Amino acid sequence: MAGSCFGKQFRVSTFGESHGKALGVVVDGVPAGMDLCEEDIQSMLSRRKPGQSLYTTKRDEPDKVEILSGVFEGKTLGTPIAMVVYNKDQKSKDYSAIKDVFRPGHADFGFYEKYGFRDYRGGGRSSGRETVGRVCAGAIAKKALAFLGIDVCAYVKSIGPVSVASFDREEIFKNPLFMPDADASKKAETYLNACMEEKDSAGGVVECVISGMPAGVGEPVFDKLDARLAQAVFSIGAVKGFEIGEGFGAALLRGSENNDGFKVCGDKVVKETNHAGGILGGISDGDDIVFRAAFKPTPSIAQKQHTANEALEELDIEITGRHDPVIVPRAVVVVESMAAITIFDALLENMLSGIDGIADFYKKDK
Amino acid sequence: MAGSCFGKQFRVSTFGESHGKALGVVVDGVPAGMDLCEEDIQSMLSRRKPGQSLYTTKRDEPDKVEILSGVFEGKTLGTPIAMVVYNKDQKSKDYSAIKDVFRPGHADFGFYEKYGFRDYRGGGRSSGRETVGRVCAGAIAKKALAFLGIDVCAYVKSIGPVSVASFDREEIFKNPLFMPDADASKKAETYLNACMEEKDSAGGVVECVISGMPAGVGEPVFDKLDARLAQAVFSIGAVKGFEIGEGFGAALLRGSENNDGFKVCGDKVVKETNHAGGILGGISDGDDIVFRAAFKPTPSIAQKQHTANEALEELDIEITGRHDPVIVPRAVVVVESMAAITIFDALLENMLSGIDGIADFYKKDK
Amino acid sequence: MAGSCFGKQFRVSTFGESHGKALGVVVDGVPAGMDLCEEDIQSMLSRRKPGQSLYTTKRDEPDKVEILSGVFEGKTLGTPIAMVVYNKDQKSKDYSAIKDVFRPGHADFGFYEKYGFRDYRGGGRSSGRETVGRVCAGAIAKKALAFLGIDVCAYVKSIGPVSVASFDREEIFKNPLFMPDADASKKAETYLNACMEEKDSAGGVVECVISGMPAGVGEPVFDKLDARLAQAVFSIGAVKGFEIGEGFGAALLRGSENNDGFKVCGDKVVKETNHAGGILGGISDGDDIVFRAAFKPTPSIAQKQHTANEALEELDIEITGRHDPVIVPRAVVVVESMAAITIFDALLENMLSGIDGIADFYKKDK
Amino acid sequence: MAGSCFGKQFRVSTFGESHGKALGVVVDGVPAGMDLCEEDIQSMLSRRKPGQSLYTTKRDEPDKVEILSGVFEGKTLGTPIAMVVYNKDQKSKDYSAIKDVFRPGHADFGFYEKYGFRDYRGGGRSSGRETVGRVCAGAIAKKALAFLGIDVCAYVKSIGPVSVASFDREEIFKNPLFMPDADASKKAETYLNACMEEKDSAGGVVECVISGMPAGVGEPVFDKLDARLAQAVFSIGAVKGFEIGEGFGAALLRGSENNDGFKVCGDKVVKETNHAGGILGGISDGDDIVFRAAFKPTPSIAQKQHTANEALEELDIEITGRHDPVIVPRAVVVVESMAAITIFDALLENMLSGIDGIADFYKKDK
Repeated sequence: MAGSCFGKQFRVSTFGESHGKALGVVVDGVPAGMDLCEEDIQSMLSRRKPGQSLYTTKRDEPDKVEILSGVFEGKTLGTPIAMVVYNKDQKSKDYSAIKDVFRPGHADFGFYEKYGFRDYRGGGRSSGRETVGRVCAGAIAKKALAFLGIDVCAYVKSIGPVSVASFDREEIFKNPLFMPDADASKKAETYLNACMEEKDSAGGVVECVISGMPAGVGEPVFDKLDARLAQAVFSIGAVKGFEIGEGFGAALLRGSENNDGFKVCGDKVVKETNHAGGILGGISDGDDIVFRAAFKPTPSIAQKQHTANEALEELDIEITGRHDPVIVPRAVVVVESMAAITIFDALLENMLSGIDGIADFYKKDK
Repeated sequence: MAGSCFGKQFRVSTFGESHGKALGVVVDGVPAGMDLCEEDIQSMLSRRKPGQSLYTTKRDEPDKVEILSGVFEGKTLGTPIAMVVYNKDQKSKDYSAIKDVFRPGHADFGFYEKYGFRDYRGGGRSSGRETVGRVCAGAIAKKALAFLGIDVCAYVKSIGPVSVASFDREEIFKNPLFMPDADASKKAETYLNACMEEKDSAGGVVECVISGMPAGVGEPVFDKLDARLAQAVFSIGAVKGFEIGEGFGAALLRGSENNDGFKVCGDKVVKETNHAGGILGGISDGDDIVFRAAFKPTPSIAQKQHTANEALEELDIEITGRHDPVIVPRAVVVVESMAAITIFDALLENMLSGIDGIADFYKKDK
Repeated sequence: MAGSCFGKQFRVSTFGESHGKALGVVVDGVPAGMDLCEEDIQSMLSRRKPGQSLYTTKRDEPDKVEILSGVFEGKTLGTPIAMVVYNKDQKSKDYSAIKDVFRPGHADFGFYEKYGFRDYRGGGRSSGRETVGRVCAGAIAKKALAFLGIDVCAYVKSIGPVSVASFDREEIFKNPLFMPDADASKKAETYLNACMEEKDSAGGVVECVISGMPAGVGEPVFDKLDARLAQAVFSIGAVKGFEIGEGFGAALLRGSENNDGFKVCGDKVVKETNHAGGILGGISDGDDIVFRAAFKPTPSIAQKQHTANEALEELDIEITGRHDPVIVPRAVVVVESMAAITIFDALLENMLSGIDGIADFYKKDK
Repeated sequence: MAGSCFGKQFRVSTFGESHGKALGVVVDGVPAGMDLCEEDIQSMLSRRKPGQSLYTTKRDEPDKVEILSGVFEGKTLGTPIAMVVYNKDQKSKDYSAIKDVFRPGHADFGFYEKYGFRDYRGGGRSSGRETVGRVCAGAIAKKALAFLGIDVCAYVKSIGPVSVASFDREEIFKNPLFMPDADASKKAETYLNACMEEKDSAGGVVECVISGMPAGVGEPVFDKLDARLAQAVFSIGAVKGFEIGEGFGAALLRGSENNDGFKVCGDKVVKETNHAGGILGGISDGDDIVFRAAFKPTPSIAQKQHTANEALEELDIEITGRHDPVIVPRAVVVVESMAAITIFDALLENMLSGIDGIADFYKKDK
């Protein structure tokens, strides 16, 4: 398994290079009987489309998704759903300047060392464009979760030194940086404009909240729900850190500060606080799941950088063309997608945990 | 797959409850022809044994490992290696006080919600004792890596507010907190003594360095080497954050500060700096891999805490018995184990990346 | 994954060599809340014990199983169940005669070519003794199936040229050959006695019937229920053929003869005949599942045989010691075990097929 | 994992319904650096195209494959290869007669019971058209095997009562039934013409020979090479039996007849005979691998048949339109594909068996 498959029950296999013919995904394990149409996918996919603001590459791609299989008369069949997005703007511009050069901060060197051969056009498979397939699969998972009453919502928490100070969910889609705080968004734009003028780039943090989550979901030991989320989110290019609940801050707290007490609320036990971030011992505790991912600054910058090439020569390069000065805003929908895929996969697996649930299921059929 | 299996090629299946008959592991995929004996496992396992310092539980367990299969005449057979550690000190002390109570910060509630039934003796499967099997498997992986010239070394980076300021590898095993800095260790002991007096506990950070790593290892997209490390490390109980290289700090840097240039060194291309932490685009870049994990404070504290029980009653509990006031030092060898398992697994998978390597392998046999 | 793991949801990992310290299995994915005790396992395991008749090796092994984990207060915890059987009679007899020789019909040569190193004591991992772990896991699966109203029953259909002509389920456990026909069993014994006198061995066929099976179970395409049964049964040493329903005979029939019509029976649709053997298009059709496996004659025979050794010398060998002149009767419980594991695994997976079943499951919890 | 993925290292995910928009496959784990172009796929795919003889459906499909990803400048990138074949002739003919009826011998009933919803147009996912993706993936595996000196060749062994009596490899592609014996092919055509006149259908047997196979490939226990082949081949629709070497015939032989002696040939040990069919103990023995699969007669026949529908009514149906009177000839290339996928997958996995091979691989890079 060479790394382009994810999920155990809801099984996602993505494909495609940045400047190849198409990108896409096959999802095996989508339950039958779900309403699904191309618009469900398209509306989510359009959120990651390039060219929507000053702060994203202007590559011109309509990113129109086509469902090739697995849906019949508006409903999922239980068979694999293949989705494809053809590349339009993949004409070979001139790559001779970087064809055999290892761009700092990029995956070029690793791919070359691993395969001895690489697609140098726009990063090939290591491009952010690879996430097209993830978002298509994520759209299905999000729709399935919504049907179960579970919501997944990600947004930009900080860009460079600018963090959000308030939370207004409506605001997220009103500013180009997908921040839930209009003031912070303004300040971040100012910061980004300065970066761009200095031919430099910025990083930031995405936060994600999953609400409506039932308690008891996640597998103990290696497949803890937070461990799977960690892999899912860390598999997004440029992520350098992942934390849940208090995260790294928990290392500084005392047990008496970090523990969440329990109380009774109607016929349910619930936590009094949520330092844990909704997961205890790898299993959901019924509270909101809250995690954060740190993204490094975009490695493609127009400043001169020192590097080497395949011929073992050192040289300086300047990366031309317009690149996203920050990838954090466009990563929001990708984080949401990976979270949705992971959570739905865990919900499926959790159904097999107890013999009584299994007996109920089969009794129903008799 | 209910979560107790890990690894794709080097396949680890652990078992055992805190107060059950035994704990252990079966490892399938250990290559044939490796020298291996019980002492190789025991020496690593003894590093996580309880009762070795003031700061660990005094449960009396010899933790003697027995290899049941897969080794013949001192060499691995290529068949599964089963290893078992019998529990000695599992006599049922009186659990009536916590039997149906959800301890704050523990996995009790999640297990109860998931399975409707749980082993209340010492946390059962959610106990830190579950890591016995991981360390046994990790010892094999570490030995295999050493044979390939790769070293894995973890240590305590900080406890509560006390961080190490210098690095002396020899020092790690000289102090009870496994810190590479004798001064910091002293200060951390003082801090822990205060915590204990206040019936409280502390968290901290473990850092791990993998050196001697060849470039080109790791699978792009979902099985990025750092994504797999993230899952591996996050699957250790009490981990709340994971970061690599600059980690969360990278979100604050500019691209020009965070990018690592390349240079030529003999007949190899190497990086000039290591902000990336040894992995670019999910593939090792030939530099040291450096990651950190944040651990929360031990949830078992002797202070009075508010909680609820299975009968939907609220109550206060005080957790008696001596518990580790900090689990970070004992987690060091577990982090090392999970890192070794992950890295060796990735090295195996990487062998299948190119057709020329495959042809070489089979030509050899002809 | 080096081949000792089986099952997707009910995940079986076996270990152990013929003359090693112990054999056993870890089963991950056993649902919580099932009644389970060692006697449930032991009663099934004892059916494959050596030394029970004239026709089995007289190796003296009590084959006493010990449950090490996953069961608490008589119920499964949902955590991995590890089971171990220590070898008693593994004293090294003198293997010098066959140590470096490739026995005809055995796995010796393949293991040597694959690993360059092998456990020559009684075949090591390739011994029939490897099936101890399978039967322990199979006992759990059989118990779970019984709870769901599903029965798995295997028996000997033929030995050499002697086939059963009638079916009396009670009879199966009354004769040493596990045939459901007392007359056939007598004739087969006569045949086997002749084989033994001529220092030769015999093969035969095992048939297995799974009744009480709900319709709709099995995954289309690669994980068809019969395809998984084929792998499961073919993974038993000495199996050379597998067929379902009319099997190879179907190749000779016309469509009009082989098709099973449907009829309505109460509120259910059922088949009029069962040429299909209970599976259509890889999915159970509600009828009995009926399959057969062909076993080759025991390769260990006392006649002189021509072969070669590791030193590339040709030589003649005579295999001494008493060996089963036919392995078919002892394979019956192994076939039953593999069938039960496969069917239960498929039942678990099938629960995830439809969005309505999933919504029902989670609504229940709300 | 809902059943449309196959292979562990060479990972195949197929998609598509008979009358949906497209069919295809994503293959993850194709090694980098292989020469590959669409013609490599097309030439194999064209062998399964409908309408090539009297004995196949006349559905008009060009079955033109398009490679969407994973190939750059004529070489594989090591990234997933997605291949798609658009359906042309999928106009909805009138399905009202069979829309809610369970056709005897078809998967209709199982799909309905499993999913509660099905694509009734031409069988949907259960159609033989599903194999388009398998053949595309098989073409890559066959090419990789050829590079390693391994050949996979399947052909029709028998149709109804007519078996081949001689073997002429050239002949296979000269007759419409893909039989290696011109006389047998003639007789089989006569037999099929009679079946068609009687509105009936026939079954048959496909045999497959894999030559050039190195010894030592295959994983012991559950992933025996023959067990994986059994699953691979049994996953093809209409297969009812699978056997290797002497197969079911071995059950009738004595050990002295069935065992293959070894001899020394140059610097290699080889078998004197090949009753085993090239696999011993689940591991290749260096000899040709020879297996057979039994196919049932095509279930779609024009005769009147009794059946039931979703409304629980009994009725008679006559299946109109021209259907293949035998599917065996068109299955040949599918058997070859599944064999090639399975063998190449096993060769990849086998590379991880010994520590010396691993050390050699990484030393090479240093």
